[in-house]
Amino acid sequence: MTATDEIRLARVALGCLAEPGNRELGVLVRQVGPAEALDRLLKGYVSERLAEAARLRLSDIIDAPDLARGLLDSADRMGARVVTPEDHEWPAQLDDLARISRASDGRAVDRDTDPPQCLWVRGDAPLNEAFTRSVAIVGARAASNYGTYVATEMSHGLAERGWTVVSGGAFGIDAAAHRAALAADGLTAAILACGVDRPYPLGHANLFDRIAETGLLISEWPFGSAPHRLRFLVRNRVIAAVTRGTVMVEAGGRSGARQTLGRARALGRAVMAVPGPVTSAMSVGCHAELREEGTRLVNNYSEILEEVGRIGDDLAPPPRGPDRPHDTLDPLATQLLDAVLPRKARTAEEIAAAAGVSGRDARRTLPTLVDAGFVVEHGSGYRLAPTPSSCEPPAAGRWPAP
Amino acid sequence: MTATDEIRLARVALGCLAEPGNRELGVLVRQVGPAEALDRLLKGYVSERLAEAARLRLSDIIDAPDLARGLLDSADRMGARVVTPEDHEWPAQLDDLARISRASDGRAVDRDTDPPQCLWVRGDAPLNEAFTRSVAIVGARAASNYGTYVATEMSHGLAERGWTVVSGGAFGIDAAAHRAALAADGLTAAILACGVDRPYPLGHANLFDRIAETGLLISEWPFGSAPHRLRFLVRNRVIAAVTRGTVMVEAGGRSGARQTLGRARALGRAVMAVPGPVTSAMSVGCHAELREEGTRLVNNYSEILEEVGRIGDDLAPPPRGPDRPHDTLDPLATQLLDAVLPRKARTAEEIAAAAGVSGRDARRTLPTLVDAGFVVEHGSGYRLAPTPSSCEPPAAGRWPAP
Repeated sequence: MTATDEIRLARVALGCLAEPGNRELGVLVRQVGPAEALDRLLKGYVSERLAEAARLRLSDIIDAPDLARGLLDSADRMGARVVTPEDHEWPAQLDDLARISRASDGRAVDRDTDPPQCLWVRGDAPLNEAFTRSVAIVGARAASNYGTYVATEMSHGLAERGWTVVSGGAFGIDAAAHRAALAADGLTAAILACGVDRPYPLGHANLFDRIAETGLLISEWPFGSAPHRLRFLVRNRVIAAVTRGTVMVEAGGRSGARQTLGRARALGRAVMAVPGPVTSAMSVGCHAELREEGTRLVNNYSEILEEVGRIGDDLAPPPRGPDRPHDTLDPLATQLLDAVLPRKARTAEEIAAAAGVSGRDARRTLPTLVDAGFVVEHGSGYRLAPTPSSCEPPAAGRWPAP
Repeated sequence: MTATDEIRLARVALGCLAEPGNRELGVLVRQVGPAEALDRLLKGYVSERLAEAARLRLSDIIDAPDLARGLLDSADRMGARVVTPEDHEWPAQLDDLARISRASDGRAVDRDTDPPQCLWVRGDAPLNEAFTRSVAIVGARAASNYGTYVATEMSHGLAERGWTVVSGGAFGIDAAAHRAALAADGLTAAILACGVDRPYPLGHANLFDRIAETGLLISEWPFGSAPHRLRFLVRNRVIAAVTRGTVMVEAGGRSGARQTLGRARALGRAVMAVPGPVTSAMSVGCHAELREEGTRLVNNYSEILEEVGRIGDDLAPPPRGPDRPHDTLDPLATQLLDAVLPRKARTAEEIAAAAGVSGRDARRTLPTLVDAGFVVEHGSGYRLAPTPSSCEPPAAGRWPAP
């Protein structure tokens, strides 16, 4: 077993022994590393609080490393993987959670907001790339038609512009956000409060399969974990931390989505909410948040991009601004470029059809767009080249370099 | 003619010669007084700009003082009056407008925001008392059902709690605000952009008569003045300045109500807006304002009172707080007191009926409430004694002492 394997195994075992976010465990791991931390935990050489937190599990688990090995094998067989902070694709912005974690008082859910030990993942996209340009869209399960409509519009607009739409996989606003991103051929990530092999809610089993196919299904909890009530709240901190900002579309006065927004605020991420009628119970939470300092009212995806993107770049409405290289292109090339999608490759014929030009023109012009760096070849088709200029990190967060 | 009469006459004449808000005139009047300012204006000993502003009128008017006398006589005959800054009842907070008036550049409407020279008034309430606790409710003429509903609810709640509801007498939000205040037996003031003898819109002739009966119909323009487009914008500064805060209920992107809110902001008054669906064109202006620093989202009248009133006093919901003298009253007295209105006197019989107690109990107990200072006699009935404790001025404004 290599040192890397050992660390990975230790991370997985630690993730099974203590509830994600455990502050004492996080501090210990940062001090002595995952392998040594696991060793101490198994031997009981840890703080009383941490020992207490792990006691119940320890009594159930005969051999923690063995359990971890078994879980890693199952994941492998099911096409899932584990990502740990040691991996290149780890989204480094998650480590900001260590900053807001409080060892002292408060409810466990408020104290234990440490970064995850590892993430279980279904879906191919490397996490760091997927979340560099990402926005969380969250809200009520019992969403109104209005809320569902707004979540759909916003998510579609963001996904179309190459932003990853992150949500929690729940009914209502979450589902609308995921579905609209899929419909836009964009990337969407569902961050769950249960194992990625265990669809919850069950009615979303198909949706989760579709998300895993083109996007990401992610959880801190190992295979088979059940979604307890508290876990949704623990999970929310990951949604807030991994994205550049969180948009609350609809929420009742006591909605869990408000907690996600609170985490985003504590992390210095963009905090956004959608207004609605003052007569709607589903907007009460949004309006309460909008009365807080620093919450930004957003009407549409452009205003979301203004908050999370670089001004003047992502802010631009679909017809592009005057000072971009695109402006040097001739009308045919511009028409074709507008029909190339950011993530999903299209064949020259598909692009020609979408742009309303002949297949011959498309086949002849697309290679020049590749040469000019606007488009990249992908399989037998083309997709937009990544735009690193839009990946400027916000001041407060620790973002990977583009 | 006494010195006071001379000043009043000069103010009225000046109000006829230059459009209200004229910056040069305001400065001159503050320097040399109204009578001398009128003398200089008639003789042409004024700045070229001011001479220019008055030239058109001067050529029409044979004798300005004579015209002013005629107007004052007409007002007298029609039961109206003129209030000038020299009068005790002048709302001193209007003088804050001199602070934001800019002599230099910009459109006339942005430059000429000086305080009025005088106000033409229909209605008995002394202006200073009426506006000490006042809120402006403004918004679109083409209001939606939603906007009309919210304006009605807010205005009714404010009026019931003894606050004067100020608006501009227009269709839509304005009308809903005035009507709801009337329905609550509260005080409402319509500040017009035409003469108080000249209903505009004509369809509000009856509404204006009802407002003048129990509330106030006010204009800077003399009898017979027509409502030009520009005058609505000039008028808006008075709505913003005379109140503690302005609430925009619904407004399109280019609504004039947004200018009222801008004036309130410049004056340091409370700036409030009501959210609505992001899909409604009538909420576009509100959401744009809510995206500005310092605009407060309000869901209901309680939140308006939080902004403009003294915390813990006006904030209180109808069942009164624990630390007020009312708590020393016996249940019968409390019941009766709850049925006494703040402004409209009710007879002992009416109060008994509203409180659900016998007329005999009411007739016996009401005088004790008068002795205790909670209630005052008014004509053959009773109304609530004024509550000076709620009249604390906000920091930024120049408010009269309660």
